[in-house]
Amino acid sequence: MSDDFFDPFREVRVPFKIIDGGVTAARGFRAGAISCGIKNPEVTRLDLMLLTSDVPTVTDAVFTTNKVRAACVRVSQQHIKDSDVRAIIANSGNANACTGPQGIQDAKAMCKATAEALGIRMRQVQVCSTGIIGMNMPIQRITPRVKELAEILTPTGSDDASRAIMTSDTKPKSYSIEVPCGDGSFRIGGIAKGAGMICPNMATMLCFITTDAKISPDELKRAMRSAVDQSFNCITIDGDTSTNDTVIVMSNGMAECPPIKKGSDEAKIFRCALHKVMLELAKMIVSDGERVTKFVEIRVRNARTHADAKKAAEAVAKSMLVKCSWHGSDPNWGRVIHAVGYSGARLREELIDIYFGGLIACKGGLTTNTPVSELEKVVKEPRFSVTIDLNQGSANHIVYTSDLSEEYVDFNSSEYSAAIHAKRQKGLA
Amino acid sequence: MSDDFFDPFREVRVPFKIIDGGVTAARGFRAGAISCGIKNPEVTRLDLMLLTSDVPTVTDAVFTTNKVRAACVRVSQQHIKDSDVRAIIANSGNANACTGPQGIQDAKAMCKATAEALGIRMRQVQVCSTGIIGMNMPIQRITPRVKELAEILTPTGSDDASRAIMTSDTKPKSYSIEVPCGDGSFRIGGIAKGAGMICPNMATMLCFITTDAKISPDELKRAMRSAVDQSFNCITIDGDTSTNDTVIVMSNGMAECPPIKKGSDEAKIFRCALHKVMLELAKMIVSDGERVTKFVEIRVRNARTHADAKKAAEAVAKSMLVKCSWHGSDPNWGRVIHAVGYSGARLREELIDIYFGGLIACKGGLTTNTPVSELEKVVKEPRFSVTIDLNQGSANHIVYTSDLSEEYVDFNSSEYSAAIHAKRQKGLA
Repeated sequence: MSDDFFDPFREVRVPFKIIDGGVTAARGFRAGAISCGIKNPEVTRLDLMLLTSDVPTVTDAVFTTNKVRAACVRVSQQHIKDSDVRAIIANSGNANACTGPQGIQDAKAMCKATAEALGIRMRQVQVCSTGIIGMNMPIQRITPRVKELAEILTPTGSDDASRAIMTSDTKPKSYSIEVPCGDGSFRIGGIAKGAGMICPNMATMLCFITTDAKISPDELKRAMRSAVDQSFNCITIDGDTSTNDTVIVMSNGMAECPPIKKGSDEAKIFRCALHKVMLELAKMIVSDGERVTKFVEIRVRNARTHADAKKAAEAVAKSMLVKCSWHGSDPNWGRVIHAVGYSGARLREELIDIYFGGLIACKGGLTTNTPVSELEKVVKEPRFSVTIDLNQGSANHIVYTSDLSEEYVDFNSSEYSAAIHAKRQKGLA
Repeated sequence: MSDDFFDPFREVRVPFKIIDGGVTAARGFRAGAISCGIKNPEVTRLDLMLLTSDVPTVTDAVFTTNKVRAACVRVSQQHIKDSDVRAIIANSGNANACTGPQGIQDAKAMCKATAEALGIRMRQVQVCSTGIIGMNMPIQRITPRVKELAEILTPTGSDDASRAIMTSDTKPKSYSIEVPCGDGSFRIGGIAKGAGMICPNMATMLCFITTDAKISPDELKRAMRSAVDQSFNCITIDGDTSTNDTVIVMSNGMAECPPIKKGSDEAKIFRCALHKVMLELAKMIVSDGERVTKFVEIRVRNARTHADAKKAAEAVAKSMLVKCSWHGSDPNWGRVIHAVGYSGARLREELIDIYFGGLIACKGGLTTNTPVSELEKVVKEPRFSVTIDLNQGSANHIVYTSDLSEEYVDFNSSEYSAAIHAKRQKGLA
């Protein structure tokens, strides 16, 4: 194995090998995508994907915490109760959110068409959508095409599938590894999409992960929740949480390795592996956030409790003033400490140290002698860390975030009007 | 009287007349300002102001909730316990925050110089600073000038004082009214500064209000807290809360009108008048927010509780995606409903109505037939309202906010570096 992953939370080192294949790297999964013209009938781009398991699965999913939930999320939440998920159908170009009873009907129609094409039950299908909120799905351009899509699925279809869920993403996001386990190994891999509206507690983010490990529903659920908490729930781009966020993990047990049992070494290994895949995909989402020019890791350490560490890190990561300063490569520790100050975390100002990269900018709440030109060198890098040491306890938290650019504002200032006007020009609205 | 003010919270209509004079409109107050070169010794601009009452006062103050508090805030909080405040000294160009024991010493030195110049006790002085965080005060350029400042105070000095506290504000903020009360009248007026870091629970915001009404400390405190809650705590520009925010109200009883007694009609009138002055100053702060191009009133109505209404309104007002859409004059109600959805307010998606101005964009969680071109006309205006009707109860809340512009990002991307480099060039750092 060529690499290993140290999990600081579980204090265990897991060897693994990065492999090709993304969401179809694990044995027994197939995927594919087609172009339906969902956003615009005149533009040819992949916008509908299908992912299936050849055999029954144990599946778990985590959905948005937003109280305004897309129709597809509501339908998938109903379906997941059955657990033996055999397929995920997902589209970009329309979020099917704020679409009322018609939206529910459309999401169900997508599941029905998928079930018929694959010869499975409708409740074995998960359905996901991402795109603009508040417009009905062009369902007549989708359902008649699902049979054709089902016929082109391949064990190398991950790349097409990852492209079909992109919205304002600039590149597809995919990651897969093989992990030794017992005498054999299992594979685990996934695809994701992110871009705008990214924030802890799930965002406009879709992530589909498959594994051929053998695992019980309970153990999968435990691994899933802790991995999501330490990956997707640790990223923020603009602090907005969307109506459509979904993470689905499907396991089909086709690997030749021991079953993952509660409390076993294999269970530890699986948790680390799932965490690793999610963390890599989560970091890709931040790096490719809308018009992002900096990837920043906010590390809060020595807080009184984990809740305090989290509050402090999230306040810094969400502060518009802090994000603007990073954009301008400005090592403005004053804005960092002021965000920590209003975060609600318990602290004593005179104990706070702040570092840019390895350089201390603020010691005990006061400026240091570190030359600003040295601090600037750190913040000029496209990737850097900001460490806030509260010196109050021993709890730590990390948040992955980005800067805020003029281009983000420009990019996000006319989506709805532009979409409506485009539809109207084509006689669709 | 030429105008009146309807207070929706107290359901009372109070006649009043807008008058000149700002913070020196009330009888017995004097103010003035000088240029000390606090930010830059080579630039001549008013940056140190002094406001005094000729007679003893009843004074109340509200300070930032940020746990990182500026040295001047700590000193003023100590001094306010005495209540008989006779003077406020305030500077722009340096926040005296994150400056440790030296900062405390500097804030006390400003109070001492003021007390000596006016022949009062040091504890009768409030001290305020606004500007960059984390650099020591150039105290040697301030204290020797206070005597000279004390000698130029006049009952028409409000304009100079309001200019001396400006930082990135583009214009001074001042408002004053005369209110009939009993057989006479009282006057109440103030000055404020705002710009960046504006958010509910006090922000980088200074506001000094004076009145010649006769009022007890208890009644002033009650009026103050409710007026602040319904004015300054209802505005947000960038969601950041600063280290230095302060609102001070001084009353000196020099008006010829009945004393303001608890539960009396006069008490109602005084509360409304104080609310009116604070609300007008708060709105000026939003309108003049850093690189703001839109002033937006977010009205949430028919929430289950006031806390629900507040959560929903603040989530919309703080959403970067929503603010970007306003900047582009995009009536994107989908982003509004998604922010309401993650706000934590109790709601049912299918009951939510959203209006831009008087036009309904979303009814029962779904799009309406209102032409987008009509909605766009509303959002193109420099001032408009967004109303979110939760149709769940009868609680309402209003937040005043702004758009987010590319210029905001650009403006906020290099403050610290620029300040340090400027100091270094002049051999000061």
